Amino acid sequence: MNKLTHLDKHDAARMVDVSAKTATVREAKAEAVILLSALTYKAVLSGRAPKGDVLAVARLAGIMAAKKTSELIPLCHPIPLTNAQVTIEPLPERHSFRVVASAKTKSETGVEMEALTAATIAALTLYDMVKAIDRGATIETVRLVAKSGGKNGAWRAAGRRPTSSRP
Amino acid sequence: MNKLTHLDKHDAARMVDVSAKTATVREAKAEAVILLSALTYKAVLSGRAPKGDVLAVARLAGIMAAKKTSELIPLCHPIPLTNAQVTIEPLPERHSFRVVASAKTKSETGVEMEALTAATIAALTLYDMVKAIDRGATIETVRLVAKSGGKNGAWRAAGRRPTSSRP
Amino acid sequence: MNKLTHLDKHDAARMVDVSAKTATVREAKAEAVILLSALTYKAVLSGRAPKGDVLAVARLAGIMAAKKTSELIPLCHPIPLTNAQVTIEPLPERHSFRVVASAKTKSETGVEMEALTAATIAALTLYDMVKAIDRGATIETVRLVAKSGGKNGAWRAAGRRPTSSRP
Amino acid sequence: MNKLTHLDKHDAARMVDVSAKTATVREAKAEAVILLSALTYKAVLSGRAPKGDVLAVARLAGIMAAKKTSELIPLCHPIPLTNAQVTIEPLPERHSFRVVASAKTKSETGVEMEALTAATIAALTLYDMVKAIDRGATIETVRLVAKSGGKNGAWRAAGRRPTSSRP
Amino acid sequence: MNKLTHLDKHDAARMVDVSAKTATVREAKAEAVILLSALTYKAVLSGRAPKGDVLAVARLAGIMAAKKTSELIPLCHPIPLTNAQVTIEPLPERHSFRVVASAKTKSETGVEMEALTAATIAALTLYDMVKAIDRGATIETVRLVAKSGGKNGAWRAAGRRPTSSRP
Amino acid sequence: MNKLTHLDKHDAARMVDVSAKTATVREAKAEAVILLSALTYKAVLSGRAPKGDVLAVARLAGIMAAKKTSELIPLCHPIPLTNAQVTIEPLPERHSFRVVASAKTKSETGVEMEALTAATIAALTLYDMVKAIDRGATIETVRLVAKSGGKNGAWRAAGRRPTSSRP
Repeated sequence: MNKLTHLDKHDAARMVDVSAKTATVREAKAEAVILLSALTYKAVLSGRAPKGDVLAVARLAGIMAAKKTSELIPLCHPIPLTNAQVTIEPLPERHSFRVVASAKTKSETGVEMEALTAATIAALTLYDMVKAIDRGATIETVRLVAKSGGKNGAWRAAGRRPTSSRP
Repeated sequence: MNKLTHLDKHDAARMVDVSAKTATVREAKAEAVILLSALTYKAVLSGRAPKGDVLAVARLAGIMAAKKTSELIPLCHPIPLTNAQVTIEPLPERHSFRVVASAKTKSETGVEMEALTAATIAALTLYDMVKAIDRGATIETVRLVAKSGGKNGAWRAAGRRPTSSRP
Repeated sequence: MNKLTHLDKHDAARMVDVSAKTATVREAKAEAVILLSALTYKAVLSGRAPKGDVLAVARLAGIMAAKKTSELIPLCHPIPLTNAQVTIEPLPERHSFRVVASAKTKSETGVEMEALTAATIAALTLYDMVKAIDRGATIETVRLVAKSGGKNGAWRAAGRRPTSSRP
Repeated sequence: MNKLTHLDKHDAARMVDVSAKTATVREAKAEAVILLSALTYKAVLSGRAPKGDVLAVARLAGIMAAKKTSELIPLCHPIPLTNAQVTIEPLPERHSFRVVASAKTKSETGVEMEALTAATIAALTLYDMVKAIDRGATIETVRLVAKSGGKNGAWRAAGRRPTSSRP
Repeated sequence: MNKLTHLDKHDAARMVDVSAKTATVREAKAEAVILLSALTYKAVLSGRAPKGDVLAVARLAGIMAAKKTSELIPLCHPIPLTNAQVTIEPLPERHSFRVVASAKTKSETGVEMEALTAATIAALTLYDMVKAIDRGATIETVRLVAKSGGKNGAWRAAGRRPTSSRP
Repeated sequence: MNKLTHLDKHDAARMVDVSAKTATVREAKAEAVILLSALTYKAVLSGRAPKGDVLAVARLAGIMAAKKTSELIPLCHPIPLTNAQVTIEPLPERHSFRVVASAKTKSETGVEMEALTAATIAALTLYDMVKAIDRGATIETVRLVAKSGGKNGAWRAAGRRPTSSRP
């Protein structure tokens, strides 16, 4: 009970054997919020207005990172992603951006780590592009928002969104 | 002023040309805190007692991710890391773990993104290993802690550590 | 109509969701022609006579690149290739080499990009091996030749082969 | 004379040993032209107007590919790029786009292959995004435009630009 | 007869086309033995006692390498691994460690190379961690131990284990 | 004394900090011997006669793997290789092939792991190409042959070559 699935009986790390599972459509959604200074927040948004490149770069970095998840997370299975999306929503009241990433597959195992990796790398990419003017920018609240498919079925994070829960 | 360095005059994304800079030793330290349920926190610590594999896996994932930074963050320069370290410290009062990653290079540009990537991927790896029993675990406060070297010299994050600042 | 499938309704880049598609055998064939100086063309062919290494290296680079396609083309799906082939045919009348690459999968989406990436990287590898004696060598006419499988079925490039069409 | 540098005396493929060379600043510029149908050309440009994502994705793919060059071209040395840029210029008279990529390093060897790889992958990415509506789009004239630095010094491609030379 | 399957009729290297094969569960097990000095053997075991990090690092390196097999072995198919395990067993009588790696998939082709790559990279990682005190450590007897699944069915290596066969 | 350099004082795995070391030319040479059945040995050699593809593929795989070493061996530093060579020599009396790989850099740390990785992956690639007709082929004696450069200077493996020492 409460045994960590990635440890064998000798507590050595292992992949979980998913050979006997059925390949079904599985989805996951994750988020990461990056909190900027007021000045930086404006710079990103105005840089975004005409061309959108800052947020376009971050979105694309997230999508590409989703495909690299099994290279980054040691015990993750390599799976054929059928979709990966990243959207970035401005949160003006906290001069933040909220990255939401979703991933989808038809596989024996879920895509939670793919969604989380996409959201996180998109947020880190945003940080990379503003760090020269805002080194103290902070990423908060990286978490799974929802998942569906597989034996355990659907799951949704409890609690309200970070915007409202931390005024 | 406050111009984003990764955008050219047409607001298109670009790498920053560092050819004219001098190769000097540069260091950076970053942190990520992952907040678990009380039960999961205990499972990780007890799984850790005899063999340490859970935290060993997370630490190693962080070190290996530091070396992949320029593949993940689109406008990062590939640099020859001379060091990368990850430590993971239990924070009992919040049943959390604090990942601290540091990176070092002798290069024309800094290693902030390497330290941040190492800390983040180590934290995500920890999440991966507990997600079957604690899907709601959350990564909070990914941030740069300090950097030194380069033209701009040393920088240190303002404010107290997350442990004390959010009781 | 003529809407780009990789842009969502806000014109942001996205992967195309292929979760609902059926996995079927899909094939694609692409070509790239590299035009050398007469001297270099001879050097490659004679270097090829006893050991074949120049063309062997280029062929292998193409096959290995096919497997890297989803890492290179941001919105490509990672797919399990069931085959990848590269052949290189000398075109004496234009002292050129014609690289033909084909790729195959049993998947929800096609392998056009895999075939094109294989052909292109094979041609670039050939360039790499001759550039010290022929910096002006040029790759012409990278294009899809044919594809089959999937909802849209077979497609074949119009027009004659480059050899005959540009005397 | 005219011996291929990547073949040893037994004609086996090899890397060129650059240990004895001096690390100096080296630059290269390459181009690739992609020829679209009139309809697709308009779709890309209009999709580009508000957000620029199609060309932004292609540019970014090129920059990221430059960093992967030594993984793709078997006998290329891994080098610490100090810069990589990609610009994409519309050529209305031929409903084409001209991708120009430049790369820079402070190294023992040049960056021609990095510039060529960036230009080519950017062009292939553009193809990927239009292939659903224009499968016959063709990449033409992938070539080195200029290089400087190193023992052999500066080099520039002869002849006029493709726009004017092929009316 | 005895024709190498990776050569076509012109003796050019090729992938084997597995499109027509059926996806079934396939498994393979491989081993690698690393022979250390008596002193190093003790250092690894004692370093292992409290935290297990040396062997944990080697095991993890093996698991991650299994996922990289198709990037390393040029004509290997990329396949979705459903499992990869690495165990390391001390062989006191020869102050050696025996790495045993197993891999599993549900695919059109087998996982022998994945198991062999995992065992080998785990052994090389062990070497990396002891080389400062035991540069002469040697890896012996990398071999396939068993495989099952696929058209040819089960296979098991003849002969006894290296421990007993080479006293 | 005899402390493993990759373990810190808490026995946790770490990279070795090489920031304070001087970048000098460093070289290493490693070998791996693969033992085939008499029939397979002949098939490889005869397949080799006209085109050399089997051994060409193995050599190239070794060179490319040398460049991937720091991705495979968790605590290895990423270094700019200035050279990597692989030769494969037939050992008729044992129907074996001896792979010899050498690597070179101008760096703060050595290239032993690069040479060993190249030799090993070349040998595994050879195995991959013969495994359909000789599943029991075994790789023996993967070891460092020599290294030079760096603070510790030159080192050479004791004992004779495997060919003569094990008749």
